[in-house]
Amino acid sequence: MQQQKTPVRITGGTVITMDRARRIIEDGAVCFRDGVITWVGDAAAAPTVPGETVIFAGGGLIIPGLINTHTHISMSVFRTLADDMADRLKRYLFPLEARFVTEELVYWAALHSLHEMIRGGTSTLADMYYFPHSVARACDEAGVRALVGETIVNFPAPDAPEPYGGIARFEELARDYSGHPLITPALAPHAPYTLNEAELRRIAALADEADVPVMSHLAEMDFEVAQLAADYGETPVAHYHRLGLLSPRLIAAHCIHVNDTDIAMLRDADCGIAHNPVANMKAGKGTAPIPAMVAQGLRVGLGTDGPMSGNTMDLFHIAAAAAKVHKMEQRDRTVMPAQSAFELATIGGARALHMEDRIGSLEVGKRADLAVVSLEAPHMFPVYDPYAVLVYCAGPTDVQDLFVDGRHLLKHGELQTVPTARVRDEVSRLVAGVRDRLSEL
Amino acid sequence: MQQQKTPVRITGGTVITMDRARRIIEDGAVCFRDGVITWVGDAAAAPTVPGETVIFAGGGLIIPGLINTHTHISMSVFRTLADDMADRLKRYLFPLEARFVTEELVYWAALHSLHEMIRGGTSTLADMYYFPHSVARACDEAGVRALVGETIVNFPAPDAPEPYGGIARFEELARDYSGHPLITPALAPHAPYTLNEAELRRIAALADEADVPVMSHLAEMDFEVAQLAADYGETPVAHYHRLGLLSPRLIAAHCIHVNDTDIAMLRDADCGIAHNPVANMKAGKGTAPIPAMVAQGLRVGLGTDGPMSGNTMDLFHIAAAAAKVHKMEQRDRTVMPAQSAFELATIGGARALHMEDRIGSLEVGKRADLAVVSLEAPHMFPVYDPYAVLVYCAGPTDVQDLFVDGRHLLKHGELQTVPTARVRDEVSRLVAGVRDRLSEL
Repeated sequence: MQQQKTPVRITGGTVITMDRARRIIEDGAVCFRDGVITWVGDAAAAPTVPGETVIFAGGGLIIPGLINTHTHISMSVFRTLADDMADRLKRYLFPLEARFVTEELVYWAALHSLHEMIRGGTSTLADMYYFPHSVARACDEAGVRALVGETIVNFPAPDAPEPYGGIARFEELARDYSGHPLITPALAPHAPYTLNEAELRRIAALADEADVPVMSHLAEMDFEVAQLAADYGETPVAHYHRLGLLSPRLIAAHCIHVNDTDIAMLRDADCGIAHNPVANMKAGKGTAPIPAMVAQGLRVGLGTDGPMSGNTMDLFHIAAAAAKVHKMEQRDRTVMPAQSAFELATIGGARALHMEDRIGSLEVGKRADLAVVSLEAPHMFPVYDPYAVLVYCAGPTDVQDLFVDGRHLLKHGELQTVPTARVRDEVSRLVAGVRDRLSEL
Repeated sequence: MQQQKTPVRITGGTVITMDRARRIIEDGAVCFRDGVITWVGDAAAAPTVPGETVIFAGGGLIIPGLINTHTHISMSVFRTLADDMADRLKRYLFPLEARFVTEELVYWAALHSLHEMIRGGTSTLADMYYFPHSVARACDEAGVRALVGETIVNFPAPDAPEPYGGIARFEELARDYSGHPLITPALAPHAPYTLNEAELRRIAALADEADVPVMSHLAEMDFEVAQLAADYGETPVAHYHRLGLLSPRLIAAHCIHVNDTDIAMLRDADCGIAHNPVANMKAGKGTAPIPAMVAQGLRVGLGTDGPMSGNTMDLFHIAAAAAKVHKMEQRDRTVMPAQSAFELATIGGARALHMEDRIGSLEVGKRADLAVVSLEAPHMFPVYDPYAVLVYCAGPTDVQDLFVDGRHLLKHGELQTVPTARVRDEVSRLVAGVRDRLSEL
């Protein structure tokens, strides 16, 4: 990871700071050096530094990099497979993974998603999958910030032939990426319905010992709720609470089936919540009570889920869906206004990952993770409300520049760190291999 | 409107015909001349014609042009204004229109939307607004196929100072555009709650006499349902039925609040239905029972609604939302699969407009309305299911070419018929005028 050492000034745009006051600075500028934001304010007052690189925002919006709090980026090789099939998880997804997921596939498929994510303004992601070393390597090479979790399940996994083998594999990941400037290793117990009590307790203890985050699917499935009610008389959240998993380490994905007591437990334990509205709608699973969680101060961010669930890695689309699904659920267009939805995609995501001291807003001292969004396309004009244009109008191709930790990953729409042609060739080869064996499913 | 006289062959892509058999032709070709499709089949077997223009699809998808069955394209000047406000229709929308909507605004704002729509693969639209002459002129110049409706309301309208003045204005529109190859004039009574019984009856009779379509909002609002129940003891659909408006002429937008009897009446009268899932979600209005309507053979298409309601004119996004909102409503991911959603965007839209003899699929003898969708962007690969990639992954910028009536409107991503820079300047000027007077609202 080469950091950009030259001081940079981005100027000539409207700065959407997402700071505590939610300041919006028309004709503003953001300066940074050595990966740290050094100045945010009026363009006319910005300090000039000898030898600095000046980026003109062309009248666009200068925003914090977007944060994807739940995904499985290497599933990009399975995109558009079995989208509308019943019992997809057990009938298609697990069997596909058992047959095809290798260390090599995870690496190239991760880069394929990272191409899309950088193109669309994503600076940070929280991923849980098998062969997380490959995900970490891809993220490091691409230059994005990432939590990378080793997935643990009670059956043979692609990267661990014995049940719960991910626990042992995690230790290697933690060793290799401890102290890395961009990559944070994490434990990722798959879900309450794919791990037993003893192993869940053990993972909670190991997370404390290793001082790492824990990612898990939680309260996502109807059958999960029914199974835990039958076996333990508990909700999924209460189950994790009893086993010691509710803590500031936890980033809980989905949290659809939660009651008021569950929400209070998640809040009191200071957990992070990853809301995946597009994947949840597409699966017909239900709507997580996110407005209530936000009102109670929970740490809520947005996730695309994997590209076999939500199809694309477009966080603008996720923010738009987050705004709309709750208006629909409550039959009230004032619920989850555009600003709130954009908060979830930025500072909310940072809070969900417990990284709000470093990322999620444009403030002096934070890491230089930021994007420039063009307003040139016809769907991006006029702009009476910049939050509305970001949430209801913007798409990935409106992003013109992306910096992560001060490094220029997307330059006027061109990828700088991902060898896109090579990645396409490798993914094409892997996809051909999947296609050849699909009849086995 | 200059038609393309040179024969054209589009080759080297997968043809998504949307014909009755839903044929998909890998490595296929589509040929057309004088605005009519002359050949559809395997690329290797396509006839070559001296002097023809050959367009290479680059391995992409060759699809019917998309059909937008309900919109108000000139509201693009109000985009991002009052998105999340309560009582938006009466508090913001009607007052904005009363103050700002002029013949000139309607023309430039229509072209602004048409830029976006052509960029995104839309070949046909059904628009209802004030000053429809301006909309018709813009559509004619841009080269898209359009139903253009004169909106009629029981209060002074921007283009008619007296209530119901739109009825008189319509006759001029009908005279000027009768027999036009692309533009179909139409009557557009606004909604059951903004017209009285006598005028609704009169419009039904006038539509028969002039032999034109009728567009209307129907069963969209909670208060509409309550008001008609109180005043007439009728549902909105029953109200229109009694007044003679349910017929093959009618394109009814929204139809959210309909019961089984209403659906049967709409079916028996052979009405068209315009489903606007994004606008409906964003307004928290509820979900039209579209899967039931489709199962009963109703004519259902998709609409963006105006850019002040759904924000963008992206029909891929609407198809994606149509797929997802019904899965969510029914808690079943198999409901409204990708193919069904893409049907709504193409042949379904053609049926809703009663134009399926001419458009909506790629078949010999139909008008040459078609688009080429690139699969180059990372979110568009892999493609195990072309319908899934079109519905769950594609966006406007993936469209590389669009032909309407054989004319090349979008050429490798470049607009050919809309003077985009001039349009942006004019819309900027109009927007500045709106901004200056917003405090009056």
